[in-house]
Amino acid sequence: MMELPLAPVERIIRKAGAQRVSEDAKKALAEAIEEYALQVGKKAVELAKHSGRKTVKVEDIKLATSQL
Amino acid sequence: MMELPLAPVERIIRKAGAQRVSEDAKKALAEAIEEYALQVGKKAVELAKHSGRKTVKVEDIKLATSQL
Repeated sequence: MMELPLAPVERIIRKAGAQRVSEDAKKALAEAIEEYALQVGKKAVELAKHSGRKTVKVEDIKLATSQL
Repeated sequence: MMELPLAPVERIIRKAGAQRVSEDAKKALAEAIEEYALQVGKKAVELAKHSGRKTVKVEDIKLATSQL
């Protein structure tokens, strides 16, 4: 199930320089970044557990992104 | 400027298995995925231009994600 709303995803791709974007392309980008976020999230949860914490903190996110 | 709302970002990291997430961690994850989306977007815009199109299509997003 898709969590991210398409409007902000569209704004991001316009920031990237897109003049026009198909609806399917917006959905595909939303899915791709959601998949990426899930990967970062899983890694961050693992790192928090490894540190004996139940709370995911900013340092877990930072280390997770650097490892992907 | 951040485009993505934090509520769906929080839902994604909970899907990834997080029991608790700090506010800063949500923001850090939102920033990280926005950065990723911008990279995919730039690559996709480049690929659309390369194909003589002004419209970014789903195939541009797919090839862009596979190249990152």
